[in-house]
Amino acid sequence: MPLDADVFAEPAGRNAPQQVHITLGDQTGTAMTVSWVTMEEAGNSTVLYGLAIDKLDMAAEATVTTYTYYNYTSGFIHHCTLTNLQYGVKYKYAMGFGFTVRTFWFTTPPRPGPDVGFRLGLIGDIGQTFDSNATLTHYEATGGDAVLFMGDLSYADKYPLHDNNRWDTRGRFSERSVAYQPWIWVAGNHEIDYAPELGETKPFKPFTHRYPTPHLASASPEPYWYSVKLASAHIIVLSSYSAFGKYTPQWKWLEAELGRVNRSETPWLIMASHSPWYISNNFHYMEGESMRAQLEKMAVDARVDLVFAGHVHAYERSFRVSNIRYNITDGLCTPVRDRRAPVYVTIGDGGNIEGLADEMAWTQPPYSAFREDSFGHAVLDIKNRTHAYYAWYRNDDGAKVAADAVWFTNRFHMPNHDDSTPTKSHPSIASSSSSSMPAYNLPRLIRISN
Amino acid sequence: MPLDADVFAEPAGRNAPQQVHITLGDQTGTAMTVSWVTMEEAGNSTVLYGLAIDKLDMAAEATVTTYTYYNYTSGFIHHCTLTNLQYGVKYKYAMGFGFTVRTFWFTTPPRPGPDVGFRLGLIGDIGQTFDSNATLTHYEATGGDAVLFMGDLSYADKYPLHDNNRWDTRGRFSERSVAYQPWIWVAGNHEIDYAPELGETKPFKPFTHRYPTPHLASASPEPYWYSVKLASAHIIVLSSYSAFGKYTPQWKWLEAELGRVNRSETPWLIMASHSPWYISNNFHYMEGESMRAQLEKMAVDARVDLVFAGHVHAYERSFRVSNIRYNITDGLCTPVRDRRAPVYVTIGDGGNIEGLADEMAWTQPPYSAFREDSFGHAVLDIKNRTHAYYAWYRNDDGAKVAADAVWFTNRFHMPNHDDSTPTKSHPSIASSSSSSMPAYNLPRLIRISN
Repeated sequence: MPLDADVFAEPAGRNAPQQVHITLGDQTGTAMTVSWVTMEEAGNSTVLYGLAIDKLDMAAEATVTTYTYYNYTSGFIHHCTLTNLQYGVKYKYAMGFGFTVRTFWFTTPPRPGPDVGFRLGLIGDIGQTFDSNATLTHYEATGGDAVLFMGDLSYADKYPLHDNNRWDTRGRFSERSVAYQPWIWVAGNHEIDYAPELGETKPFKPFTHRYPTPHLASASPEPYWYSVKLASAHIIVLSSYSAFGKYTPQWKWLEAELGRVNRSETPWLIMASHSPWYISNNFHYMEGESMRAQLEKMAVDARVDLVFAGHVHAYERSFRVSNIRYNITDGLCTPVRDRRAPVYVTIGDGGNIEGLADEMAWTQPPYSAFREDSFGHAVLDIKNRTHAYYAWYRNDDGAKVAADAVWFTNRFHMPNHDDSTPTKSHPSIASSSSSSMPAYNLPRLIRISN
Repeated sequence: MPLDADVFAEPAGRNAPQQVHITLGDQTGTAMTVSWVTMEEAGNSTVLYGLAIDKLDMAAEATVTTYTYYNYTSGFIHHCTLTNLQYGVKYKYAMGFGFTVRTFWFTTPPRPGPDVGFRLGLIGDIGQTFDSNATLTHYEATGGDAVLFMGDLSYADKYPLHDNNRWDTRGRFSERSVAYQPWIWVAGNHEIDYAPELGETKPFKPFTHRYPTPHLASASPEPYWYSVKLASAHIIVLSSYSAFGKYTPQWKWLEAELGRVNRSETPWLIMASHSPWYISNNFHYMEGESMRAQLEKMAVDARVDLVFAGHVHAYERSFRVSNIRYNITDGLCTPVRDRRAPVYVTIGDGGNIEGLADEMAWTQPPYSAFREDSFGHAVLDIKNRTHAYYAWYRNDDGAKVAADAVWFTNRFHMPNHDDSTPTKSHPSIASSSSSSMPAYNLPRLIRISN
């Protein structure tokens, strides 16, 4: 979108807080980190918060940071973690005192537990185009409690000199959602901003200054991989662009983290990375192969339910498949259906400056259950310990039209249940739901993609 | 070896420089970085150097650093880069003025050129055991101009609390070689020293403080991957334990670096990493698979001559093979003989606290030309632009007995020559050399392994 687009407008008032966003401040949401930027000066760093707008009776102080990137100098970036919050409570919060006060609200996640429902939004590669705006608008209509965002926020690196003003516009554009519910950040390749030709060699410099993650709460040494626990889901965020080889910090952390997962408390085990392990799209094909080769067996052994990724600007959902038999000499390198294995969802179709990945050059391979090059988003609606209703919504349809939907069953509590029976190419929602569909609210409106 | 072993003895004299070692200070050796440690105090940081011991008429100043690791505090670590050296000249150098002066010498590498000969020592995983000492002694007997060291220096992480005194003993043990000729360092997993349980979460902390690399000279942002040019060889060092996914700094650097290789000037293109891509040993099997999946095609496309690795505590040499056809669905995942491809040599048999990797559980796969679980080292004796004589020496034999030897032909100048004709299991040196053996000095004494 052009720089003068309405969604990029700066808030009125001198030094008004802008680019407000929140993310979890600890592993489960009893802390929430509020971030914002002021452009003229650092100003006041206090966040007041409470249960009502006229009762902001708690206060916390932000840290303030700035950074430079080539010829760009950032505004004053504030990060303030509100602690000791109660589960499942709506809080109001305000900042900008002394200049222009702005007020927002969020609801903390529910206390984790095996049957606690949760609506997890799933968005990737959203950028800041008209399509991005459509995706965000559609997500607002379907509604979710939080977003697992699969990486690639601003695409500033696609503008001359990695124009970091595009990080600011991206921050203002998405404020209408991210100031009101936590987004869980996965680092994408467009977050790397490694540009030795500009003298910028510190990977993830703009991203880490702007988007904190609660990595310390899950004993991760770096902000790019960490875990959160939301309701009945344990979500592990991985970094495609950090070291993940055996013995590396990320690998050692993942091994330890999988040992910490308590499926009795959080039966849903979800992983997310930017680069997908299973796609059938020519764009970025095989880029996730090295990470798959290193980590897939750990995911299968841990009975991960779902693995989400972005990167490829299209939508694709796999069957439960694995490809972990290969030993170099045995030739056993073809993915096979495997009920122990995760379903892989690639949802890099948020809408962005690079456009759609519309080259699916061969017939749909057996591991692919559904694929389409359309912009959109998805919601995973976790119902209880055994069932979750998953739906992908494409922007071309009206809001709340599920173009692909599946009832997923839990790999811990229903390990042998096949929730992804194939049809010839696309599994219809009818066939997916035919086997022991639970008695929860059914999808409202079904459209079978073709 | 026990702490009171002779090879660990501290040099006599108050605050005497110890753990002296040199490495290239630029890409080709017109600079040399001299490093040493003083234990009592920082002391004098000057290096005097010149063409004769009584004519040390040049001076350079070291930087001094220290580090802590859990309950250990390092001595004063000096790094001093001598610049503007001439090619192929023997320099004397001395340090420790004001306390105890020690004097050493090195010969700078020859000016790079296509037919410039060079003897490159190849050692990996040497540790500080009696076997390590035997390997070093054997290497001193065969003789080389420099060493490409495939990683795992001290194994300090195998001692309680990553006892960093073992970095010091390792430094004293190897001084008798590394003070006199440059060793080119590859980072191994035992260099990571990532120990969150000790509060040590900065990877490679002891290693980077002690062993500088000339990474800036090849435009690398990190010390773990870089290149050097020695005589007629362009040597690319890669890091198995840093990010290497597409778009990461290491990947982008490698892509650019391969574009900078000038085979007319340096016809021999060599790569090295710690974790091997092709082995047939149960130890660490498949650990290099993710890096192979990501980078092998780049190596084949660039017509890399040789890829060296360590990590597996045995010796193995492959035929020229590749495994780059795989596209997930085609089943083409078996390595094939490929004259475009490198030979892979795993030489992690320097001798170390973990012992030999003696589990080769299945019959030798077709990609493996020679394998044996014995400690040893190798030398690549580059003769000219077309031929290099390579030999592996095992410690069980007397010095200068080649237990595996091949004449390698250059992939740039003789791209279609097969220098690795197989026999049933082990290619005999005779069969390897049967096809157009060049007229250079033949191996002195041949013993066929069985």
